[in-house]
Amino acid sequence: MHDRSGAALDSRAQQDLALDPFRIAGEPYYRPVAHEVALFEAAHRSRMPVMLKGPTGCGKTRFVEHMAWKLGRPLITVSCHEDMTASDLVGRYLLDAVGTVWHDGPLTLAVRSGAICYLDEIVEARQDTTVVIHSLTDDRRILPLEKKNEVLKAHPDFHLVISYNPGYQSVLKDLKESTKQRFGAIAFSYPVAAIEAEIVAAEARVDRRTAATLVNIGARSRNLKGHGLEEGASTRMLINAGLLVGNGIALAEACDVALVLPITDDPDIRDALRAAIAACV
Amino acid sequence: MHDRSGAALDSRAQQDLALDPFRIAGEPYYRPVAHEVALFEAAHRSRMPVMLKGPTGCGKTRFVEHMAWKLGRPLITVSCHEDMTASDLVGRYLLDAVGTVWHDGPLTLAVRSGAICYLDEIVEARQDTTVVIHSLTDDRRILPLEKKNEVLKAHPDFHLVISYNPGYQSVLKDLKESTKQRFGAIAFSYPVAAIEAEIVAAEARVDRRTAATLVNIGARSRNLKGHGLEEGASTRMLINAGLLVGNGIALAEACDVALVLPITDDPDIRDALRAAIAACV
Amino acid sequence: MHDRSGAALDSRAQQDLALDPFRIAGEPYYRPVAHEVALFEAAHRSRMPVMLKGPTGCGKTRFVEHMAWKLGRPLITVSCHEDMTASDLVGRYLLDAVGTVWHDGPLTLAVRSGAICYLDEIVEARQDTTVVIHSLTDDRRILPLEKKNEVLKAHPDFHLVISYNPGYQSVLKDLKESTKQRFGAIAFSYPVAAIEAEIVAAEARVDRRTAATLVNIGARSRNLKGHGLEEGASTRMLINAGLLVGNGIALAEACDVALVLPITDDPDIRDALRAAIAACV
Amino acid sequence: MHDRSGAALDSRAQQDLALDPFRIAGEPYYRPVAHEVALFEAAHRSRMPVMLKGPTGCGKTRFVEHMAWKLGRPLITVSCHEDMTASDLVGRYLLDAVGTVWHDGPLTLAVRSGAICYLDEIVEARQDTTVVIHSLTDDRRILPLEKKNEVLKAHPDFHLVISYNPGYQSVLKDLKESTKQRFGAIAFSYPVAAIEAEIVAAEARVDRRTAATLVNIGARSRNLKGHGLEEGASTRMLINAGLLVGNGIALAEACDVALVLPITDDPDIRDALRAAIAACV
Amino acid sequence: MHDRSGAALDSRAQQDLALDPFRIAGEPYYRPVAHEVALFEAAHRSRMPVMLKGPTGCGKTRFVEHMAWKLGRPLITVSCHEDMTASDLVGRYLLDAVGTVWHDGPLTLAVRSGAICYLDEIVEARQDTTVVIHSLTDDRRILPLEKKNEVLKAHPDFHLVISYNPGYQSVLKDLKESTKQRFGAIAFSYPVAAIEAEIVAAEARVDRRTAATLVNIGARSRNLKGHGLEEGASTRMLINAGLLVGNGIALAEACDVALVLPITDDPDIRDALRAAIAACV
Amino acid sequence: MHDRSGAALDSRAQQDLALDPFRIAGEPYYRPVAHEVALFEAAHRSRMPVMLKGPTGCGKTRFVEHMAWKLGRPLITVSCHEDMTASDLVGRYLLDAVGTVWHDGPLTLAVRSGAICYLDEIVEARQDTTVVIHSLTDDRRILPLEKKNEVLKAHPDFHLVISYNPGYQSVLKDLKESTKQRFGAIAFSYPVAAIEAEIVAAEARVDRRTAATLVNIGARSRNLKGHGLEEGASTRMLINAGLLVGNGIALAEACDVALVLPITDDPDIRDALRAAIAACV
Repeated sequence: MHDRSGAALDSRAQQDLALDPFRIAGEPYYRPVAHEVALFEAAHRSRMPVMLKGPTGCGKTRFVEHMAWKLGRPLITVSCHEDMTASDLVGRYLLDAVGTVWHDGPLTLAVRSGAICYLDEIVEARQDTTVVIHSLTDDRRILPLEKKNEVLKAHPDFHLVISYNPGYQSVLKDLKESTKQRFGAIAFSYPVAAIEAEIVAAEARVDRRTAATLVNIGARSRNLKGHGLEEGASTRMLINAGLLVGNGIALAEACDVALVLPITDDPDIRDALRAAIAACV
Repeated sequence: MHDRSGAALDSRAQQDLALDPFRIAGEPYYRPVAHEVALFEAAHRSRMPVMLKGPTGCGKTRFVEHMAWKLGRPLITVSCHEDMTASDLVGRYLLDAVGTVWHDGPLTLAVRSGAICYLDEIVEARQDTTVVIHSLTDDRRILPLEKKNEVLKAHPDFHLVISYNPGYQSVLKDLKESTKQRFGAIAFSYPVAAIEAEIVAAEARVDRRTAATLVNIGARSRNLKGHGLEEGASTRMLINAGLLVGNGIALAEACDVALVLPITDDPDIRDALRAAIAACV
Repeated sequence: MHDRSGAALDSRAQQDLALDPFRIAGEPYYRPVAHEVALFEAAHRSRMPVMLKGPTGCGKTRFVEHMAWKLGRPLITVSCHEDMTASDLVGRYLLDAVGTVWHDGPLTLAVRSGAICYLDEIVEARQDTTVVIHSLTDDRRILPLEKKNEVLKAHPDFHLVISYNPGYQSVLKDLKESTKQRFGAIAFSYPVAAIEAEIVAAEARVDRRTAATLVNIGARSRNLKGHGLEEGASTRMLINAGLLVGNGIALAEACDVALVLPITDDPDIRDALRAAIAACV
Repeated sequence: MHDRSGAALDSRAQQDLALDPFRIAGEPYYRPVAHEVALFEAAHRSRMPVMLKGPTGCGKTRFVEHMAWKLGRPLITVSCHEDMTASDLVGRYLLDAVGTVWHDGPLTLAVRSGAICYLDEIVEARQDTTVVIHSLTDDRRILPLEKKNEVLKAHPDFHLVISYNPGYQSVLKDLKESTKQRFGAIAFSYPVAAIEAEIVAAEARVDRRTAATLVNIGARSRNLKGHGLEEGASTRMLINAGLLVGNGIALAEACDVALVLPITDDPDIRDALRAAIAACV
Repeated sequence: MHDRSGAALDSRAQQDLALDPFRIAGEPYYRPVAHEVALFEAAHRSRMPVMLKGPTGCGKTRFVEHMAWKLGRPLITVSCHEDMTASDLVGRYLLDAVGTVWHDGPLTLAVRSGAICYLDEIVEARQDTTVVIHSLTDDRRILPLEKKNEVLKAHPDFHLVISYNPGYQSVLKDLKESTKQRFGAIAFSYPVAAIEAEIVAAEARVDRRTAATLVNIGARSRNLKGHGLEEGASTRMLINAGLLVGNGIALAEACDVALVLPITDDPDIRDALRAAIAACV
Repeated sequence: MHDRSGAALDSRAQQDLALDPFRIAGEPYYRPVAHEVALFEAAHRSRMPVMLKGPTGCGKTRFVEHMAWKLGRPLITVSCHEDMTASDLVGRYLLDAVGTVWHDGPLTLAVRSGAICYLDEIVEARQDTTVVIHSLTDDRRILPLEKKNEVLKAHPDFHLVISYNPGYQSVLKDLKESTKQRFGAIAFSYPVAAIEAEIVAAEARVDRRTAATLVNIGARSRNLKGHGLEEGASTRMLINAGLLVGNGIALAEACDVALVLPITDDPDIRDALRAAIAACV
């Protein structure tokens, strides 16, 4: 449609070089839970922007690393935060020995060179950063570099992925409707017990029985969600407990360090969690 | 009236070159719904500033691309956001090897060279950006570049277009009366079912029956607007579902990914939407 | 009183050159309504600062352009906004090849060279900008350029004019008493029907009957002010409707585009306005 | 006490040169009202910091200009505002051809060279600017230039004067107790009728009868203070009305422009003021 | 997993040099209270991020210094505060004689060279700083230097430690759940009396009887916590009192200076504390 | 403990030179009131950080100048304010002819060279400035210069002193508990009548009877504290009144200028104060 070919100035060789730090060398461990791999592949074929939804520590980041490896694409990950501006994503002029020189931001690099760009917890960023992706998420697939009066047409392989934790949003801080509806969404949650135990055993390098005990403890802590706990123990925390056990700490104390103390300072909740742990050991 | 000819310094050739990235090469697909094409052409003849009003994803951006192509004018699009300042539109001094050099912003480029300038969702921008367009939207048609003590008289072909989504405005964030009344307004909404099916079939490359099913689902979701949904499924989302179907995903799951999960986290609303989808498949 | 002659460094020739872009070449169309021309001329003779008060779109900007042309003085107009700082008015140091160089802002240029300086909607600006004009609006007529440790004595022809829309002010955003009382004020409102029709016919180049119909519609819309409308249709909007009629759009649809859609999204108010239009056509 | 002599680097000749723009060439017209001249002279002999208190437009600025002329001292006036920082007063590093070079701010210039420094409406400034004057207003009489690691001992002739309008202060914006108590205060108010008429006649160059009429109108407007008017007409506004009369405007219309329209938009108050004017003419 | 070796550019020798200022030369005095040393060592073996929780002045900082010495690792400590940005941690471009040059921040230095990085009171920092550590606290162990388009893989010896005072958190200022659950936590509180007396005697170089008296006073002040005192006297304050006694101040006056006056201005609480002191002396 | 010797790069001679402007040449007049001299000397011997508490104008600044003179140490005073950042205290990079060069801030200069650093009204500063002093106020006695990746070990003579006015603190603006407990505190208040008269006579150079009258007036004004006055007349204000008397102003008018007008605009409080003055004269 549009004949906007500023990207053509970079030779293919240069682009490949720039993306080298972002290639995933070995297969990241990922245990599929449902249809997420097939859905991602279908979306990727149309380059339809993808939103990964789900609670913290359930494997969204690992999943996108796995898919990047599987599809053989470089992956540029950006952890968003409330002080991040559009310039942090798109790029800016920096002062050089010969004057100001333009430096591509991570989004521009991905758009120009054809990487998967993963904006982690995009809702944390300021609204100007979300507006910046609008023209990349409809059929235009362009990124206006307004400070350069350049219109960058996306590389055919560019694919945009964002993550979004539904538990975090408030009235003040949510994606705009006009942003949300530009994405296909894939939902994530904690895996069922058998799969979670398989993951904990693999990642913490503990035996299956210890892993099963930890998963059992995790399930009980998740029942406390909404009863004094904002969130239960994630798979990540169960792995942390397993690692401490592997380093010689008793299981109850390992759970105290990895599951109880980090997430609550309320003595009653601590007692409830410790009782749940004691019942499982 | 005013004899302000700073623009004359740029030769016609240079201007044409600068606008090259902003020319629309092929005809963008656009299916007219009412008198919008005639109204835009009438306003364009008087260079009367135009405000496109309507919900997200109903085709305002596509319409302005279509009109730019039809009128043979370059189109400079700016996605506005709350951190955008007047300097982002007008331009600024940058440090070069020989000192500070002025760089036109996208609005100034359009004013100087005679493009259509489309300020998307201008109400998101800070008020200084809306004040900047005042002298361009009355009979003066000038843009004061205050930092340069220059007064730029608009190119005869310059035309200003803005978009405005009535559903978004709040008391805190709205255009000032003195801004609104400088524009002629054209209203947009979702097309009637037959036209929308035609659009979905064309864009997602699915058969007319699938497209009709999706449009039927879309209509049902729009009935939920105000009953737990901020907005129903837009035409854009129906196209996304169609694209997933074309990539081998079953229609119900495609709708889940494209229509349900992105716009709501409420289990009851999700159930209602899924029931509506099941009833149509 | 004060012998402060930094301005003497600029020769008269240089000053005249700098003001060239600000001279009004042809007579701007202006139809006087009351004594405003005589009052402005009297204030101008004493260089008494003038405040133009009145609603948006009633001709304040056109009036000051007319007076500048009539008095043969260059006119430097600044549209004020809430992000405008004193430096935007007064000037700043910019980095050049040989270090930092001072650049006069538009107010300083007017003070130094003897132009009329028109600060449009000054109440929108931050308070530091209003304080800056204090020493220019009493008998000192000086502008301290604090960053240069220079005290600039105003050129004898310098005259300050501001505009002020009484409908906009709130407790949080109003001129300070110590600012207001430095100005003589001239009040503006919409002209009586016969004069307004004359203006609409002249500016939109439509026949007197169409102009009279539009003025009649305008009057009815102004009756809705306070009953759901923040402001009625201004003279400017009637001219816009006239221009669309001149480009072949039917009068009712032209009024819809120019008078109804831009100023309200409330279906009831829209119906009321459309009924008023239908009654006049 | 302290032997801090950084100021000695500037020769006396250089200092005198720097102060030239700040010398008052001719005697500014000032009509004493009470003991204010004697009190200022006594405070000046001890270099005791002085605070001028009183409503806007009653002559505080003229008084300090008069005293500077009478005492033969240069006067550096700074109009404070809420965006003014300590650096605006003290100075800053600017980038030059050979790197960053220190530029004294107006306060530092006065401290170093021995001028009267008049901080007009200091309460408008941010608190860092008021803290900056603390070490200048006790027996230390030093100004630490923290960015230079220099401690500047005040020139023996340096004298600090501030103005303060009691009607403006709020809980949020007031001088700190620890600042107030460093000053001797002199109170100002509008002069009695005979003296005010003398001033109006002198400044507006009108006859004594017109001046007396204007002063009579001013007195009536001041009775409306607190009954819908924030402040009555100041001496300055009476002079403005007189100037318009001198330029051929009828007295009632001159009062409307100079006294009524600038200070109120309330139709009832306008009527009350106009009735008071009509009664006096 | 990822082959990201930008760090390899720095030779081992250069890294060791850069860390020299951060090595702990002698053994810092630390008296263990529970299992904290074993827990820290277990976490360190897996490089599991550690959160030290506990009230102010109970020895968290001393503990991490002790562990760094014990493990023979350099320690880079950053005191977080609310104006600290991600750039303060990660690094920034600075202007050099030959243009902009990248300077590593303290976190990047630790990641690149393999130090323990201790972020003291991280909850005080802005959220962008906490997001920055996310990719360092899961199995990726990478630090994206977005402004350089570089992905820094952590040195195998890099270990992240943070402190967290549960008494300080409010709804507005707390770590996000997704941050907390990335850490194993070790809890600290004031030591039991015998151990605390041992510490006071060792650090203030006073006899055991004086130390015991001070610890007794400390215990009584802690009983006032929540009854007018925000916190009781910390071990640190008892040591301060001991030091004053060692310099010849009477014990009651030393306690007044070190324990009473710094923490309360309420006359009743002061009396209560002084009574408690008098009872112990 | 730590072997961090970056400070060793500055030779002793250079350090002494840098501190020259901060040496107190002659003995500042100070009249001791209680044990404050002995307490300060004891704290100084252990380099225990000292907090001077007390109302404005009671002599805290004079006391620290006196002690610096008595102990023969240079004194670096910083008046804190709410716009002061950590960089203002610690230092920053400035652009020089050869690129950016580090400039020590006043705190760093004191730490490096061994001066007493007096942070006046530290609670006014932003929290980042108070966090900066934490590592200087425990046994580490280090100042991390994070922007330089340098850890500066304090000179053995470095001593930190802060002032704190209990009357000023609010919930929003107070020192954190973890800051307060790092200091020994010395309390100040207005001296008893005989001593205060001695001070007024010495500083204002008036006879003992006038001084006694002024002290009597001061005592009466302090009784009005809390009954309409935020604070009574400080010793400083009594001295100001004395100075005016010495310059020929009558005692009642001198008190009006120095004691009444600066601290209140309430007519009733003014009358009460004037009655108290009349009763004493």
